[in-house]
Amino acid sequence: MKLTLKDGSVRDFADGITALEAAASISEGLARAAVAAKVDGRLVGLDYKIEGDRRLEILTFNDEEGKEVYRHTCAHVLAHAVKSIYPTCKLAIGPAIKNGFYYDFDFRTPITSADLEKIEKEMARIIKANLPIKRMEVSKGEALKLMREESYKQELIHELPGDEVISFYKQGDFIDLCRGPHLPSTGRIKAFRLTMLAGAYWRGDEKNKMLTRIYGTAFDKKSELEEYLAQVEEAKKRDHNRLGRELEIFMTDENIGQGLPLLMPNGAKMMQILQRFVEDEEERRGYFLTMTPYLAKSNLYQISGHWDHYRDKMFVMGNEGDDEVLALRPMTCPFQYMIYKNGLKSYRDLPIRYVETSKLFRNEGSGEMHGLIRVRQFTLSDGHIICTPEQLEEEFKGALDLVYYMLDCLGLREEVSFCFSKWDKGDREKYIGTEEQWERTQGIMRNILDHLGIEYVEADGEAAFYGPKLDIQAKNVYGKEDTIITIQIDLFLAEKFDMTYIDQDGQRKYPIIIHRSSIGCYERTLAMLIEKYAGAFPLWISPVQVKVMSITDRTAQHASDFANKLKSMGIRAEADLRSEKIGYKIRIAQLAKVPYMVIIGDKEAENGTISVRSRKDGDLGAMDEGQFISRILREIASKT
Amino acid sequence: MKLTLKDGSVRDFADGITALEAAASISEGLARAAVAAKVDGRLVGLDYKIEGDRRLEILTFNDEEGKEVYRHTCAHVLAHAVKSIYPTCKLAIGPAIKNGFYYDFDFRTPITSADLEKIEKEMARIIKANLPIKRMEVSKGEALKLMREESYKQELIHELPGDEVISFYKQGDFIDLCRGPHLPSTGRIKAFRLTMLAGAYWRGDEKNKMLTRIYGTAFDKKSELEEYLAQVEEAKKRDHNRLGRELEIFMTDENIGQGLPLLMPNGAKMMQILQRFVEDEEERRGYFLTMTPYLAKSNLYQISGHWDHYRDKMFVMGNEGDDEVLALRPMTCPFQYMIYKNGLKSYRDLPIRYVETSKLFRNEGSGEMHGLIRVRQFTLSDGHIICTPEQLEEEFKGALDLVYYMLDCLGLREEVSFCFSKWDKGDREKYIGTEEQWERTQGIMRNILDHLGIEYVEADGEAAFYGPKLDIQAKNVYGKEDTIITIQIDLFLAEKFDMTYIDQDGQRKYPIIIHRSSIGCYERTLAMLIEKYAGAFPLWISPVQVKVMSITDRTAQHASDFANKLKSMGIRAEADLRSEKIGYKIRIAQLAKVPYMVIIGDKEAENGTISVRSRKDGDLGAMDEGQFISRILREIASKT
Repeated sequence: MKLTLKDGSVRDFADGITALEAAASISEGLARAAVAAKVDGRLVGLDYKIEGDRRLEILTFNDEEGKEVYRHTCAHVLAHAVKSIYPTCKLAIGPAIKNGFYYDFDFRTPITSADLEKIEKEMARIIKANLPIKRMEVSKGEALKLMREESYKQELIHELPGDEVISFYKQGDFIDLCRGPHLPSTGRIKAFRLTMLAGAYWRGDEKNKMLTRIYGTAFDKKSELEEYLAQVEEAKKRDHNRLGRELEIFMTDENIGQGLPLLMPNGAKMMQILQRFVEDEEERRGYFLTMTPYLAKSNLYQISGHWDHYRDKMFVMGNEGDDEVLALRPMTCPFQYMIYKNGLKSYRDLPIRYVETSKLFRNEGSGEMHGLIRVRQFTLSDGHIICTPEQLEEEFKGALDLVYYMLDCLGLREEVSFCFSKWDKGDREKYIGTEEQWERTQGIMRNILDHLGIEYVEADGEAAFYGPKLDIQAKNVYGKEDTIITIQIDLFLAEKFDMTYIDQDGQRKYPIIIHRSSIGCYERTLAMLIEKYAGAFPLWISPVQVKVMSITDRTAQHASDFANKLKSMGIRAEADLRSEKIGYKIRIAQLAKVPYMVIIGDKEAENGTISVRSRKDGDLGAMDEGQFISRILREIASKT
Repeated sequence: MKLTLKDGSVRDFADGITALEAAASISEGLARAAVAAKVDGRLVGLDYKIEGDRRLEILTFNDEEGKEVYRHTCAHVLAHAVKSIYPTCKLAIGPAIKNGFYYDFDFRTPITSADLEKIEKEMARIIKANLPIKRMEVSKGEALKLMREESYKQELIHELPGDEVISFYKQGDFIDLCRGPHLPSTGRIKAFRLTMLAGAYWRGDEKNKMLTRIYGTAFDKKSELEEYLAQVEEAKKRDHNRLGRELEIFMTDENIGQGLPLLMPNGAKMMQILQRFVEDEEERRGYFLTMTPYLAKSNLYQISGHWDHYRDKMFVMGNEGDDEVLALRPMTCPFQYMIYKNGLKSYRDLPIRYVETSKLFRNEGSGEMHGLIRVRQFTLSDGHIICTPEQLEEEFKGALDLVYYMLDCLGLREEVSFCFSKWDKGDREKYIGTEEQWERTQGIMRNILDHLGIEYVEADGEAAFYGPKLDIQAKNVYGKEDTIITIQIDLFLAEKFDMTYIDQDGQRKYPIIIHRSSIGCYERTLAMLIEKYAGAFPLWISPVQVKVMSITDRTAQHASDFANKLKSMGIRAEADLRSEKIGYKIRIAQLAKVPYMVIIGDKEAENGTISVRSRKDGDLGAMDEGQFISRILREIASKT
């Protein structure tokens, strides 16, 4: 038989050899590295017998699907170990996931993190025994018999079609319902670690029983495992959802609810700094500020299309048939459109740029909420540029330039990537407008993006229901990507809202609308800043910029006066005048990541100098007050 | 019989004389001025026969109740005139109100404002005829017979108890169901005017028929009527609900809903200026900014007591029995309490002052909403001072001092009065806490107010459900009073929320909470500023401070450069470079009440000078640029 390999070459093999044998005949190294194979694009185990002319691809750990097979096998080893130690425990499911795997168990007596080490030891024993892993195919009846002790597996088997052949994988005395494929034997796992214990509802449904989920990961080199674990450790330290709470930037409370963080004074101060910065810069660039209500009658959302296309994500007050049904807004668009519509507009008035530090509301599912990243109320620097077709490219460019400026000021420019989000022609009812309009709008947008030389990926089905988007995306510490800023072109809503202008030729025309943000969602930006700087923020956005400390009570007045002097110059200073050791005060300020510490003892008070420590550069020694003030005013202004 | 007069003197009269005869025997002037009387405190007509020893008070137009009788009679004259002209029209009701009266009619064919003059002429004829006004008392059956053509009156009569004697008043051939009393004859009305036509639902219920309401007023001197009408004319010009729209400060839209104004760029700019000013001043006074969510689970409101005491005014999402019921917040209190509760607090940490530019939501009835004064979403400078009992007076004083400072800066100090709002012992279930706690808290508050020398009126039943308030009130252009700022003392909620601090003696104690605002509700403040300044705002809060105008296209560049120079110095300047006559440009800027106009023609461009016009002082002649800039920077800083 002839097999076409990945590099396109075609080789002759004996009919019926396994994928592993084929790999070995290509190279010994490949056979050693092989974890699975793809035959005619279908993922199979290395013991799969190939018959007839096929395309063959040997997968190693370096392939995404190779990693999945490898880690999926490790999940089986975990389950095997758990069943050896806790024979009464019931198995649920155990897939590979991004960066690792998990397995859900129903323990008769709950286990704790302390038990993970014992389980790891048993796993190591199973791996060392290098048990062969064999695939078995049975009928539904036999499957139910095999799993008679496992109620969760029984539930899964019952849902399979009656005529399907059901596969199991077996290693030693452990057997598990599984589609596969798997590594040929347990000994192929080179490095693994159990990382976490968590609760998880059976099938993710909170009405079901809460099971115990054990997370782990596996690599094919010990060094890679160590590197990964170190990265995770570092990410945890930076995780905004932990560090943001430690730094008293935000908190949550169960009586208030999920996805509704409270910004504490440090966080509120940062938010205020960012909002003023953004509003001022936008004003400078010719935007008009608006402040519009956060709720409106359903009538408004019916015009915009949100009522038909977005209602399940909206907070609605009242029921169909009531005199008035109100809903919290998921967007600012129609509110600014109403302002546009107030008074006749001429082509001479365009472009009009409206902006609002806007609160928006989305009814996220309870499993989706996370820290400041995914919340039910958020703050968007939301704006709409209403322009003529001739002005579109220039205005789009201006909007993007503003985004770049914001990202530069925040030090986040390097962190982002671009995605051109398009509609999905196959899912027509998700969108308003005609195919011709969509193709035209996307064509215009692609031209602009290409003309501006932006590197982007394309994503079908990711457009807003009213137009394509440029999504500016960033990853969090765990590598999860979120959209932080978007710029959208909208050829539809002006007509729906009957927004017009009188053109030079005296004709009433519909303008084009650019929906855009500048800094994006403030809460997400705050989360990104926390993670990027691990809480050690640039001076200009630090909630406290300078901590002034007295060494003894004798210099308390002096320290307090100097803090007030800084405050009167618009510098965010705080005094720590407590009767505590100076070493303790410094440690507290360091934990709070305050950029500058000013220490005033008898000597300094006498000389009229101050002693300065910088978060970044350590002890800067004695300075005179003026020198220090001009240094930090310069640093604040530079936004570095 | 002996009658005790208003001044306490007792005089003998013949039994059975009328109130008017008694007045005449006191003085001829009093008889002429008399409009009604009170016998033993009961309001009666001047034809009332007095029998036995009584207290007697003769009412003139100068008494509130005298005005009401006078104007109520004028309402009957109106109805009489309308029935003469439109015999098929049906009568509804016609009471005296503050500053005038109205009468509701059901016209077969609607009338217009143009018809009011005709009606006024007929009224004048009826007054000139000086028809005697006679009271009649009849049984229910007779009453129904008398009013057989008047369906609205019939409805009213049907609702009266069967055994009640029903009174009517008759003048000429006009008769009306009426409790009275009235003037003795139509000729007693000296000056009246019909002021407005409006729609009004029968009995104020929007399910009923819409009737035509004719408003009018009456005075006992022509000069007073003229003065009043001039005042109303001036008030209308200043009415924020009209002027605020004309100046493009705000707008409303029926698709968005009632009580949900949109701040247009001018209004949003003013709001931004005020918010930054308030937040900065509060920070200077040791307040910490918070930003907390606008919705929360019902659990939170259950703890605060709002769920039991305030739910009918709240916007609720979801229904009893749902997994989660959320509601928009009507107050900020518990959100800031949660921040307080985050981390242990010691007496050394107190006082803690939290403040937030807070959005609040109240589900007002559809008849109650008005402009920026009564809205369903509003912005409050809301804060809570958490302190020890020893700190209470000092902190209360500080809160009040901040209020004075704000009012001074806005020029509103002269406009306000104070009300000490207390609980109503007779309506216990409206309040939380014990009688002893209420009396103690009110005692503390009264002591502080008296100690600070504040002049206040007292109002029972006006407290919040959790504590007494100092309400700072102001009147709108029409004389209607609203609370704009409150300071409240709360001894209850700390315990409900389990907010504690460790006192010097090591004991866990409940702090006292001061609920306070500084500038109050921003929307109301904006409305007050519009009415106080008739839109000609002080320079520091003017949305546009300087309008720079070119006389010809030749100087457009120069004008644009100068506007940009002003902007770079933080001055809100706009350029008007259109090819329009300079007189036209000036008129537009005057209509927008821009404080300064800068005019640049060829001469100015050549000399490097500018020509300045001030809104207040008119033409200021030529200045050099620096001179002008330092003048307005000084004026902005002075907040005058």
